[in-house]
Amino acid sequence: MPLTETTRVAIVGAGPAGLLLSHLLAEAGIASIVIDQRTREEIETTIRAGILEQGTVEVLDALGDFSRARTVGHRHDGIELRFGGEGHRIDFAASVGRGVWLYPQHEALKDLIAARLDAGQDIRFGVSAQRVEGVDTERPTVVIADAEGTVSEIRAEFVVGADGSRSVVRPAVGGSSSEGYFREYPFAWFGILCEAPPSSDELIYSNSPDGFALISQRSATVQRMYFQCDPDADPDAWSEAELWDALQLRVPGTTLNEGPIFQRDVLRFRSFVARELQRGRAALVGDAAHTVPPTGAKGMNLAVADVILLDRALRALLLENDERLVETYAETASQRIWKAQHFSWWMTSMLHVAPDASEFDRKRQVGELTSVVESEAGRAYLAEAYTGWPLA
Amino acid sequence: MPLTETTRVAIVGAGPAGLLLSHLLAEAGIASIVIDQRTREEIETTIRAGILEQGTVEVLDALGDFSRARTVGHRHDGIELRFGGEGHRIDFAASVGRGVWLYPQHEALKDLIAARLDAGQDIRFGVSAQRVEGVDTERPTVVIADAEGTVSEIRAEFVVGADGSRSVVRPAVGGSSSEGYFREYPFAWFGILCEAPPSSDELIYSNSPDGFALISQRSATVQRMYFQCDPDADPDAWSEAELWDALQLRVPGTTLNEGPIFQRDVLRFRSFVARELQRGRAALVGDAAHTVPPTGAKGMNLAVADVILLDRALRALLLENDERLVETYAETASQRIWKAQHFSWWMTSMLHVAPDASEFDRKRQVGELTSVVESEAGRAYLAEAYTGWPLA
Repeated sequence: MPLTETTRVAIVGAGPAGLLLSHLLAEAGIASIVIDQRTREEIETTIRAGILEQGTVEVLDALGDFSRARTVGHRHDGIELRFGGEGHRIDFAASVGRGVWLYPQHEALKDLIAARLDAGQDIRFGVSAQRVEGVDTERPTVVIADAEGTVSEIRAEFVVGADGSRSVVRPAVGGSSSEGYFREYPFAWFGILCEAPPSSDELIYSNSPDGFALISQRSATVQRMYFQCDPDADPDAWSEAELWDALQLRVPGTTLNEGPIFQRDVLRFRSFVARELQRGRAALVGDAAHTVPPTGAKGMNLAVADVILLDRALRALLLENDERLVETYAETASQRIWKAQHFSWWMTSMLHVAPDASEFDRKRQVGELTSVVESEAGRAYLAEAYTGWPLA
Repeated sequence: MPLTETTRVAIVGAGPAGLLLSHLLAEAGIASIVIDQRTREEIETTIRAGILEQGTVEVLDALGDFSRARTVGHRHDGIELRFGGEGHRIDFAASVGRGVWLYPQHEALKDLIAARLDAGQDIRFGVSAQRVEGVDTERPTVVIADAEGTVSEIRAEFVVGADGSRSVVRPAVGGSSSEGYFREYPFAWFGILCEAPPSSDELIYSNSPDGFALISQRSATVQRMYFQCDPDADPDAWSEAELWDALQLRVPGTTLNEGPIFQRDVLRFRSFVARELQRGRAALVGDAAHTVPPTGAKGMNLAVADVILLDRALRALLLENDERLVETYAETASQRIWKAQHFSWWMTSMLHVAPDASEFDRKRQVGELTSVVESEAGRAYLAEAYTGWPLA
């Protein structure tokens, strides 16, 4: 008979979604336990994307001084769309009066972990969820195992799957863990981190005959850049000179500041939405519920939007015994999820060159990019999606 | 030795592009001969699309009382996008302060033919172009044959191919007549004309799980409607009841006014742009240069935009001996052509259901439609393209 602990909400996953939810619930006096199979160090050092919507930054402001998004991060009021060898600025401030923050996700995670631990949150690192049971009862249970393999249980009033794309909670919510809506892409991103000064003040999204590139920044001395590659590319098969050639080729008209490349990786990506986002006393948020291609910079922001909705639903359920918001969570969250899936697909398909693209497709793509940048409405339509639709 | 006539501009094709060009050239005192292999009656009775951009109507205003676009046609200040069983109006007037006119192309052709004949224009019906010679000289020649097969020549200073998608002028401009950028679609439109009152004041573009439908109008008693079908569909294989069932199914939430169907046709469509639009003393306009899927209602409007540019180029060449605008015609026209190709592809792909669409694709499509109709910028971006970008 394994040891059984109890809490109000069991949160599987100490990523941005799980940690933020624990904070919002705590503000309402709702206790939770957060578990994550990774160590704190692993969580705090994994390189992920780094664009926060203005609404996401405003949500993180609730952490007080713990959030360094506004002090260490950098506000960006636009991006550059580059094609045909020319750059075209999408001026977010002018179009929609909003902006984004360049702030790496692992830095936001450091803030969240520090804030939650400071507030006494029960976070268990190195503890994995084995399975979730009883979601159709009022006392669902997460079976967990610590680093030594000792199995025990957390019995809660609600279980939240914030445990990423290989979610252990998803099967309990929707049957087979693989079940969902998905789309694959015939390309991936080759990402590098390098020691060099920035090549641009703002992000450059570049479409070229040789494919897509994204020129991003980390700091005054470290830069993050990506270029479209084959999903099966071997990151170690390229010399540094070849990587710089590949990047330079994909941003014609711009000269990149080169420097030593100290990290490289191939990011495969796909679009995915779980078929079910909630069942009984369990629900999914963030990457457990959906993954998006990175081109739209929506991943962490969409997770935050899920959490805002689920927090409200859990307050109603656990403080007022009102199940209605939990029951409509999936439908409500899906509205934003499918808009974000579309935006992520749109940015991806508008900027990448598909391996089987015909000459017509290429010219139409340039016609589309031209239509967007020449049109005040087109720029605003892109800007409002990129900076983030209003949170519920 | 065939008979040789001379003129300043030989225009092959008495469609909207050819006839309008002859009018604009005549206003500048430049004589032309227009030939078309069809009879006047064939031209004036072929059913084609019927949406004129505001700019197109303003160009036709130059015909004076001959243009009935404003009197017989109907100004529309919006369209309805219908999906998920609900209608969403795109208010052109509110978004961009412009509108379109519902005025069938064959009615516009009657106006153009009447106006040109009244002004003494030389139009030869039932005369086909055999081939074009000498476009690299200053006296290009069109070899023509009349209805009896008698061959003669028109020698001009410039030859214009306004002779539609099977253009005879195109090979002289660009080599093989098939050469160009193209895309095919795995669906077609089943079109009907019926005797019934209108089902809606404005056009309804409907996306449904069963495919696309367009509910259009002709008059108080005759309506034009379309629904997505297989490109190989046999128009005679459907009973009237089956056709109404197919239409009603594709506009859920709307009840169509039914009535006797007196014309039916299957419209296959593709996207095409000729690789070369001008060479020496010859150029292409309208369908000879490009075809678009009908979903964006751009066909005739794009032809008019070409003609505005080519008229200006021919005035410079023939009145001032300045070749520069002729030499840049292809590049200048291509800007609008590829925006229109994109818009036509976008409306087509956003509204039709591809036979191989996955569940993800369908949900993304609804996410896209939702994004557009919920966004003031999205509606304006669509409206400005539909009502027409400014003419050069």
